[in-house]
This record gives sequence, C-alpha cells and structure tokens, in this order.
Amino acid sequence: MTAANRPEPAAVIDLLGVLAYGELSAFDRLAADARMAPTTALRAALSEVAAVEMGHYRKLVNRIAELGADPQVAMAPFIEAVETFHARTEPRTWGEALVKAYVGDGLAADFYREVAEYVDEPTRELVIEALADSGNSEFAIREVGALIRLDPTAASRLSLWGRRLVGEAISQAQRVAAERDALVMLIVGGAGDLTGISQLTDRITGRHVDRMTAIGLSN
Amino acid sequence: MTAANRPEPAAVIDLLGVLAYGELSAFDRLAADARMAPTTALRAALSEVAAVEMGHYRKLVNRIAELGADPQVAMAPFIEAVETFHARTEPRTWGEALVKAYVGDGLAADFYREVAEYVDEPTRELVIEALADSGNSEFAIREVGALIRLDPTAASRLSLWGRRLVGEAISQAQRVAAERDALVMLIVGGAGDLTGISQLTDRITGRHVDRMTAIGLSN
Repeated sequence: MTAANRPEPAAVIDLLGVLAYGELSAFDRLAADARMAPTTALRAALSEVAAVEMGHYRKLVNRIAELGADPQVAMAPFIEAVETFHARTEPRTWGEALVKAYVGDGLAADFYREVAEYVDEPTRELVIEALADSGNSEFAIREVGALIRLDPTAASRLSLWGRRLVGEAISQAQRVAAERDALVMLIVGGAGDLTGISQLTDRITGRHVDRMTAIGLSN
Repeated sequence: MTAANRPEPAAVIDLLGVLAYGELSAFDRLAADARMAPTTALRAALSEVAAVEMGHYRKLVNRIAELGADPQVAMAPFIEAVETFHARTEPRTWGEALVKAYVGDGLAADFYREVAEYVDEPTRELVIEALADSGNSEFAIREVGALIRLDPTAASRLSLWGRRLVGEAISQAQRVAAERDALVMLIVGGAGDLTGISQLTDRITGRHVDRMTAIGLSN
C-alpha cells in the first residue's frame, strides 16, 4: 500500500462500523434461529456460532474507539441496510437457518478478505483474525448434507433460498455503496475505478456459486 | 470431603446437566431480551453477557463427556423446569430484562457456590471459573440505577418483578428437587439431612434480598 492509495480514516471507520453492526446483528439472528434446531445439541452448536460473533464485535468496536471514533455513531449508517437484509431473509425452517448461516458467513468472509488488503496493519490483523475463527462452515456443510440425504426434495428449495440470500445481500450492499463514497473507494482498493465495484460483485458471486456447490446445492 | 460423603457420579452428572441447560437457556433468553435495549450499546452489552454463557455451556458439556456421560441425556431431565421458569418470567420491558439478568445471575452464582463444596476437584474448578467471569452484575446495577433515577416509580414495579423471579425460581427448583434424589443429596452436602434443603433456600433467599438492596430495589 502506497501513501497515494492509503484509505481515508473516515473510510476505515465506516468499514469497521458496518462490520461491527454486521456481527452484532448476526449474533442476534443466529441466536434466534438456533431455536429452530431439531435437537439441543444442534441448538447449542448454532448458539456457539452466534457467541463467536460477539467476540468479533467487541474487537471491532474497540478498534473504532482506538481510532478516536464513537462506535455507535460508526455503526448507525448501516443499521437499516443490515436489518432490512435480515427482515427479508428470515428463515422459516432449520434448513433455511443453516443455509443462511453458511451463505452469510461465506459472504462476510469474502468481504473481509477483499477489504483486508486496503486497511492499516492493526485493522488488517483484526479482519484476518475474524476470518480465521468463524468456524461454522463445516458444521453447516455437514448438517445441510444430512438434511438433503433425509429429504432429497429439500435441495431445490434450499438452492432457491441460497439465491434469494445472495440477491438480498447484493441489493443491500448496493444501497450502502450508493451512500458511502469513501467506503466504496476503500473497497475498490483506492484505484479510483468505480467499475471495480461490479468486478467485486462478480468475484463474490463466483465464490458464492462455489460454496453452494460445496454444500450440495445448485445455483 | 471424605470418602463417606463423596457424591455419587450420577449426582455430579445431574448437577452438570442442570447447570449446562441453565447456561444454554440463559444464552437464548438474554439474546432475545437484548432486543429490548434502548440503544445499540446496551443491546451489545447484554448480548455480550449472553455470549459468555455459551463459554460456560461448552466447558460444562465437555466435563459431562469426560465423565463418560451423554450431555444431551444429562440435560434432558431439567429442560422442562428451566423452560417453565423462563416462560413464566418473560420480561416485557428493558428494566425487567435487566433485573432478570441480575437476579438470575445472582441466584445461579449462589447455587454454584453452594455446590462447589461437594464436587470433585476438576468440577469444582469449572464451577468456580463460571462464577468468576459472569460479569453482568455491575452492568445491571448501573443500568437499573439509571432507570430508577429517570423514573422513580419504576422501583416498586421492578421490586415486585424481582420477588416474582425468585418465587418462580424456587418453585422450579422444588420441582426438580422432588424428582432428583441424588442431586438433592449432593446439594445438601451429603449430610443426609433433607432439612438442609430448606436451610439452603433460606440462605439463597437471604442473599437475594441483599442483592435487591444493592440494586436499589426493595424485597
């Protein structure tokens, strides 16, 4: 990273703000979704995934404060987009809850990975740490696999659900992008090229397709 | 602890089972109650308290497995009593949620403290560790204090709520005690004296009164 493309401090605060609110709302939604689990063991497994998000939240919020900003103010601009995403993708079954945890985790990881390149060193470490310990992928792959073996018709319903999840995520991301110029510039890598956003969307969509295949669903 | 009053292994499994299910359900209920918070910061604070419970849950469940028992089987006998307690004490306001977190944490800590004396060393360490890091008391004391300063009429409503919480907790504990002889024997310290249960109830009620006073509420 050269001085010329170092991100604006406001953009880093924006980034940490959207990540922090994303973690807090993921906690909230995963904790609620865990109630749909068919057994106490699976309920606990998804609850543990939820609890991990609060660890990330705490670190992101501490970093915002270290940078001299107010975490609540930093998160505020992103609450509506994140809540709209969740309101439009409320799982009605345990299978939908699992696919949402898996797809959501994957999209978040892709986004973390994209932005890790363009931030200062302590923020990058934080982002990479958050990537490393979100261990719900194997759990979701195993349990969705078990559901599909039990009821093969579930695969097409859950594939449709996966498409809906990524569609809503992209639509809310576009809404945020339209309002937060500095954040967009940070995400496209400071190259100043706004077509970078559509390339980013293509990369993230491509990885989503790979993930759906890995879990036994079609895109 | 002498060989004569060493608890039965079944009683230790029972104890770990009720504690584990208590932690899992506390997580679930605190996560739901956090949605009533008036600000994102307070919502996050109660969500963090919830997340801590999952750390305790994991350790308790691991200990059950180490002792050769199935955690799901160990928790099963206590699900109904714990869920009945929560169903009868669902907070309707942020103040009620805070008082429940505080009173629930306090009652759980008292219970942990009572039983820590009578279990094997690794289990005792676990119990003491769980006692040490449940740090929601100061948070609840501060926020309930703030609520009462803002609206002094809240004190009498929340005092009544506190009495209801402890009443429901005792009633569910009695229900469990009536069904789990080995656990009861463990809790009364292996003295074989069942009047120990009423003395235990008296001690826990006494500490509850002290806690209510500390938070600015009457009993």
